[in-house]
Amino acid sequence: MRRPYGLEGLPHQVTVYEVGPRDGLQNEAAVVPVEAKAEFVARLAGAGHKVIETTSFVHPKWVPQLADAEELLARVERRPGVRYPVLVPNERGLDRALAMEVDEIAVFASATETFAAKNLNRSLESQFDMFEPVVARAVAAGVRVRAYVSMCFADPWEGPTPIPQVVEVGERLLGLGCYELSLGDTIGVATPGHVTALIEAFGSPDRLAVHFHDTYGQALGNTLTALRAGVTTVDASTGGIGGCPYAESATGNLATEDLVWMLDGLGVETGLDLGKLVETSTWLAGLLGRPSPSRVVQALSKG
Amino acid sequence: MRRPYGLEGLPHQVTVYEVGPRDGLQNEAAVVPVEAKAEFVARLAGAGHKVIETTSFVHPKWVPQLADAEELLARVERRPGVRYPVLVPNERGLDRALAMEVDEIAVFASATETFAAKNLNRSLESQFDMFEPVVARAVAAGVRVRAYVSMCFADPWEGPTPIPQVVEVGERLLGLGCYELSLGDTIGVATPGHVTALIEAFGSPDRLAVHFHDTYGQALGNTLTALRAGVTTVDASTGGIGGCPYAESATGNLATEDLVWMLDGLGVETGLDLGKLVETSTWLAGLLGRPSPSRVVQALSKG
Repeated sequence: MRRPYGLEGLPHQVTVYEVGPRDGLQNEAAVVPVEAKAEFVARLAGAGHKVIETTSFVHPKWVPQLADAEELLARVERRPGVRYPVLVPNERGLDRALAMEVDEIAVFASATETFAAKNLNRSLESQFDMFEPVVARAVAAGVRVRAYVSMCFADPWEGPTPIPQVVEVGERLLGLGCYELSLGDTIGVATPGHVTALIEAFGSPDRLAVHFHDTYGQALGNTLTALRAGVTTVDASTGGIGGCPYAESATGNLATEDLVWMLDGLGVETGLDLGKLVETSTWLAGLLGRPSPSRVVQALSKG
Repeated sequence: MRRPYGLEGLPHQVTVYEVGPRDGLQNEAAVVPVEAKAEFVARLAGAGHKVIETTSFVHPKWVPQLADAEELLARVERRPGVRYPVLVPNERGLDRALAMEVDEIAVFASATETFAAKNLNRSLESQFDMFEPVVARAVAAGVRVRAYVSMCFADPWEGPTPIPQVVEVGERLLGLGCYELSLGDTIGVATPGHVTALIEAFGSPDRLAVHFHDTYGQALGNTLTALRAGVTTVDASTGGIGGCPYAESATGNLATEDLVWMLDGLGVETGLDLGKLVETSTWLAGLLGRPSPSRVVQALSKG
């Protein structure tokens, strides 16, 4: 049906950082059995994913859905060439991650004062005190650390996030030893000019990834714009599951399938098999009891 | 919550060509009462729309939903400065349109042989015999004619549509006297590189509009790309209603609200009031008995 047409200024290859098992499932009310989670991760690897954020070592009180992190990691067959990062909120989480011999972790920072208070119970400034020992110990143990920066474009309480503030938070995280920043539009309000301005403010896109939510239908256009600004790592969630609990909408992360449809059409390599992704999302939708919000999944699973 | 950030290469102003009352409603199974259609058109004008494709003079046998075209046009209060084009399939339709003193019409051509046969019962070549007298008589009567070119990127039977074939069809329609071409991705499969290649193949974007469907989630990214290639008129449907009967999906036209969210964020003027559009779509969703597929409408009508 299609043949690729390239577009000036795009990378030849894009790394899709899959967040479905962690960022997607953590917002699901119904607890998914650990066997199904392990199958989800295995299916994602089978579809060609090379980075799958698998779970979180957050305290089970906060995210009961991910209380089975150890059991899940024990069940996941780690394929050579595939990374299985896990989210780690603090030193206690790091201890659990190191005990499970994870190869990569991610920390979750805030670009705004109010979200730092609500999500981390910290000030914008004091969040770094929490991350500093986590990153230092992880790096000393040979474990790479990614940093999420959330609310990079606006938050629901403060309005637009000043770009210099995002850059400062990001640079401090890189300074602690993180290898990559994932710039998150946690409430999905960004538009392409803002995306370009933020990436340019960092001076170089080399250590930046982007993480868009589709709350207002902007995720894919913003991603395209970020790619044209030099970013080559994109966060996405197979089936488009997930979403910010602070946004009153069923729509969540950028759907991996919608991204891959675009990148396949542009001739940009991802190593992903769209058919297998759609199969996985269709299976997952059955498990979760509701249709995938991905347009591609909706179209191809009915066709 | 937001302040605009511009992006290089975008126009300062975009004309949104609203297709909801015609392209949107024609695919609705349940017949909408003519009073409600008139209110829909009035609400669209009240939200700032300057071009509203109002109905179609197609034979009622083919599209029973639009059998009330005369009655609707009689009820619509035509505001100064607002254009109310109608679709006209043939000379009989033109007679009806002229009798109602419409100021603008649109014809609907195919870029592919198979769709010409299925939709027009014509060959790719002989469709021009049908359009020629319609355009000539309309122009002679002082009525402007827009031409839709459907299946510009692929069709379900022939696969990808060769770009030179689309350009030839388009240029012949311009040659007949049409003032504008609306390049349609009727089945929603296009990606940004293909969009740019097609627009560039025309030599100039000046008389081109774009018409994307969101079947695979690509409509807004493709629209952004078309704007960066110089196009300044974009077709959209308030609430995202409509869709190609040949695509097995609930998703239809690019939603006006999702487009306006992006353009507002980019500081591109449309003259449209997003809040009033969302109100209109929420009202229409109640009338149609199902939620709007627009992400913006979903987010803002729940928030």
